[in-house]
Amino acid sequence: MIKKLLIANRGEIAVRIIRACKELGIETVAVYSEADKDALHVQLADEAYCIGPTASKDSYLNFTNIISVAKLTNTDAIHPGYGFLAENADFAELCKECNITFVGPSPEAISKMGTKDIARETMRKAGVPIVPGSQGIIENIEEAMEIAEKIGFPVIIKATAGGGGKGIRVARDEQELKKGIQITQQEAATAFGNPGVYLEKYIEDFRHVEIQVLADNHGNVIHLGERDCTIQRRLQKLLEETPSPALTEEIRKKMGEAAVKAAKAVNYSGAGTVEFIFDYHSGEFYFMEMNTRIQVEHPVTEMVTGIDLIKEQIKVASNEVLSYKQEDVTFNGWAIECRINAENPEKNFMPSPGKINMYLPPGGFGVRVDSAVYSGYTIPPFYDSMIAKLITYGATREEAIARMKRALNEFVIDGVYTTIPFHLKLLEHEKFVSGEFNTKFLELHKVME
Amino acid sequence: MIKKLLIANRGEIAVRIIRACKELGIETVAVYSEADKDALHVQLADEAYCIGPTASKDSYLNFTNIISVAKLTNTDAIHPGYGFLAENADFAELCKECNITFVGPSPEAISKMGTKDIARETMRKAGVPIVPGSQGIIENIEEAMEIAEKIGFPVIIKATAGGGGKGIRVARDEQELKKGIQITQQEAATAFGNPGVYLEKYIEDFRHVEIQVLADNHGNVIHLGERDCTIQRRLQKLLEETPSPALTEEIRKKMGEAAVKAAKAVNYSGAGTVEFIFDYHSGEFYFMEMNTRIQVEHPVTEMVTGIDLIKEQIKVASNEVLSYKQEDVTFNGWAIECRINAENPEKNFMPSPGKINMYLPPGGFGVRVDSAVYSGYTIPPFYDSMIAKLITYGATREEAIARMKRALNEFVIDGVYTTIPFHLKLLEHEKFVSGEFNTKFLELHKVME
Repeated sequence: MIKKLLIANRGEIAVRIIRACKELGIETVAVYSEADKDALHVQLADEAYCIGPTASKDSYLNFTNIISVAKLTNTDAIHPGYGFLAENADFAELCKECNITFVGPSPEAISKMGTKDIARETMRKAGVPIVPGSQGIIENIEEAMEIAEKIGFPVIIKATAGGGGKGIRVARDEQELKKGIQITQQEAATAFGNPGVYLEKYIEDFRHVEIQVLADNHGNVIHLGERDCTIQRRLQKLLEETPSPALTEEIRKKMGEAAVKAAKAVNYSGAGTVEFIFDYHSGEFYFMEMNTRIQVEHPVTEMVTGIDLIKEQIKVASNEVLSYKQEDVTFNGWAIECRINAENPEKNFMPSPGKINMYLPPGGFGVRVDSAVYSGYTIPPFYDSMIAKLITYGATREEAIARMKRALNEFVIDGVYTTIPFHLKLLEHEKFVSGEFNTKFLELHKVME
Repeated sequence: MIKKLLIANRGEIAVRIIRACKELGIETVAVYSEADKDALHVQLADEAYCIGPTASKDSYLNFTNIISVAKLTNTDAIHPGYGFLAENADFAELCKECNITFVGPSPEAISKMGTKDIARETMRKAGVPIVPGSQGIIENIEEAMEIAEKIGFPVIIKATAGGGGKGIRVARDEQELKKGIQITQQEAATAFGNPGVYLEKYIEDFRHVEIQVLADNHGNVIHLGERDCTIQRRLQKLLEETPSPALTEEIRKKMGEAAVKAAKAVNYSGAGTVEFIFDYHSGEFYFMEMNTRIQVEHPVTEMVTGIDLIKEQIKVASNEVLSYKQEDVTFNGWAIECRINAENPEKNFMPSPGKINMYLPPGGFGVRVDSAVYSGYTIPPFYDSMIAKLITYGATREEAIARMKRALNEFVIDGVYTTIPFHLKLLEHEKFVSGEFNTKFLELHKVME
C-alpha cells in the first residue's frame, strides 16, 4: 500500500485527495505556487512545499520541481487530481521512470485516449458505438465528399491533434466542407504541427451522458452508472446529476457495458470516465471521449453508490484488487452537483476573485460541500474560478432539487460574486425541472434575464 | 398539508426543522429568547419573534407567548423539537384546543409513555419485554421482599413519577431494600407529590440500544432500525451509531417488532424512539422507555436509510399516509454521530460558553454537520452546551470511524473549548474500536488521561 502521497494539484480536489489519504492512513505532501501559500490544501497536508511562481507552467505544471519534492520527501506516489498534469502521458511516464506510482492509468492508455482519431479507431475496433464518419485521417477532398454523402450533412471536421474547442469546424453543405477541410488542415498544421483531420456526422441535438468506470491492474473493470452533464455553458459543465433523467434502464445497461468495453480496450486502470453523445430521440449513443482521470463531478456518483472513488483510485494504484464487483454496486436515490464559481452571472460570468469576508457552507441532511476556501481567504485571480462544489442527495430528483435550493439559499460567501444566483434560477426553470433539455439549454434559455 | 410552521425551539434542532420546511415549501416562524437574538435559527426562518427573557421558563417554555406568536402569525402547526416542550402533554393539549397542529403524538400517548409505571404496564400487556419486577406500584415491604426473592438481587427501586436520575435507588440485599423503599417513597412524595414506587431487576452490564419508529394517523407503524447509544457520560449520550456492533440480524428483527408493538399500544403517531436495555450476554432486551419526539441522534438513521425523519414527522402531522412501508426501508453502510459540546473535556467537561472567533466545519464525502453557530457567534451560557453534531457515513464501521477522525481533525472551532479532543481519543480507544463495551465504558476507561 502507498505510504506517502504527493498531491500535484490545488483547490478543492487537492483537499479532497488529502481527506481520502487521511482516512486511509496515508501521509500527505502538498505542493503550492507562490500565490497559494495560504491555501487550505497547504494547511491540511502533513507537509507542504512551494514549487514555484504563480504561473501554472512554473509551478503546478513544473515536472522537475514536483518530482524533486517527491524525491526529497520520500513520497511513493503522486495523485494529479484533474487538470494540470492529470492527462499528461509524459508526466505519467516520468513518474514511472523515477519509481513513483502515478495514481492513474498507464502512459499508453492516457496517450491512446488523448489522441482523438486513435481513440476513435480503438473504440470502433472494440465495438463501442462511435459517431458515423471517416475511418482515420481524410486523404483528400474526394474521400471527404464521399463520406459526407453517406452520413449526410451537417458534418464536423476535426483535427486529430485538436482540443479545447480548437481545430473544429462544422460544414452544412459540399461547399462548406471543401473550404472547411482546407482551412482546418492549415490551422491544425500551424497550431498543432499535425494537419490530419477526420470527419464525423454533426449531432446537434443531444445530451452529454457519461459513465464512471473503475479498473484495477488485474483485469477487473466495473462501471458505477452514469452522470448527466447536459447543462453546460460554452462546453463548461455547470450542473451534473445522477441518474440521468433521460435514460431508460435498458440504455443505462448498454451504455455501462460500452464504457467497460472502452476501458478494457486500453487496459485501463484506476478511475476514468467515458463520455457519450446521447441522442435521446433515437436512444442511440456514441463515444465522445474518455477522461483518463478523476472528474470534477465524481461526488454525485459517490452519493448514490456509497463508494469513495478517490480511495478506490489509491487502492488500485497500490495494486490492490477492486473492492467491488459489478453486482456489489447498487444505486440509491438522486444526487445533483452545482459548481460554485467566483464569477458574476449578471456580467456574463466575469471572474470575481478577491477576499471572502465571511464563509459559511450549508449543512444538514443530504448536503455535501467540497471546497478549499474559508472566512478571510483571498481567491487568487490566476487559476480556475471554481471555489466550491455543492452536492445534494435526495430520495427523488424532486427532493434533491428542493434540497439544493435550500442549501444554495443558506450558503454564505461574502465578498465576491458567485454563481449561486444563477443556479437558483436554473433550478426554478420549468425546462430544467421537467428534465427535458439538451446541451443547448443555456444558449436557448437565458436563465439570468 | 401544513403551510406555516412555528419552531418552538432553538439551536441546531431549530435549524434542522427550518431546513426540512424550506425543502417542503412550508413557511417558517422562529421564536427566540432575548439571549438568542443573533442565533442562526432566527436568521434562517422567514419570520422571527422574541418570546421572552433569557430563562427558558420565561421563553422556550412559555406556553402563552408561544401560542400567541402562532396565532398572531397565522401559523397552523408547531414543531417542538426535542427538550423544552417536546414531551409536555399539556402543551400538546393546548395546541389542540387552539386548533394548531402539534407535530408529535397525541397528548394521551405522551402521557402514557411519560408515566413510568403506566408505560411499563402498557408494554407488559402489549407483549413488549420488560425488565422483571413488580406489576404496578408496590403496596408494602412484604410484597417487595417477595418480588426481590423471585427476580433476585440487585434490584432497583423507582418512583413512578421520577425522572432525570431522581427517585431511583439500587438495593443489593434485603436490608437495603427495606430502607431503600422507605426513603424513595418519602423522597418521591416530597419531590413529585406521588410516593408510588415499583421494583425492577437491576441490570448493570448492558448496552443502550434503541429503535426508531415512524407512525401515521392511519394505523401504519414502521421501524427504521436501531441506534446504539451505549457511550454515555452520566446518562448523557456522547456518541451514537447505527447499526449496533452488538446486534445479530435475529435480535435486530425481534427488537424492531417489539418497538412497533410498543408504538401501536399507545396509538402512536409521528417519529418516536423505543429505548431498550440490551443484555448482550443473553441476547435478551427489555423496554426502558419511549421518547415521544425526535431525538438528537436521529441523523445516523437518516444516513443509512436515506429517509428524512423531520419531513416524515411533518407529513404525518399533516395527516398524510407514511411515505414508506416496512419493506421499502433498506439499510446501507454505517453512520456515527459525535456530539460536539462547548465543554472542556480536560476539566471534567466544564461548560465553555463564549465567542467563536473562527468556525469552519469539515466537508467532503460522507460528512454531515448539523449546527447553529458561525464565525463571530457568541455561545450563551444559559442553554444546552451542544453546539454541533458531526455525523459521518462509511461503507463499514471502520470507514465511518476513519472518516470521523479525519473530520474531527479538520473541524475549526476557535475561541471555546470543545469535546473534539475527547472524541478523537475515544475513537482511538482499543475497546471502542473493538465494538465490545457497555454503558459503563466511560466510568471504567478514562479516555482523557
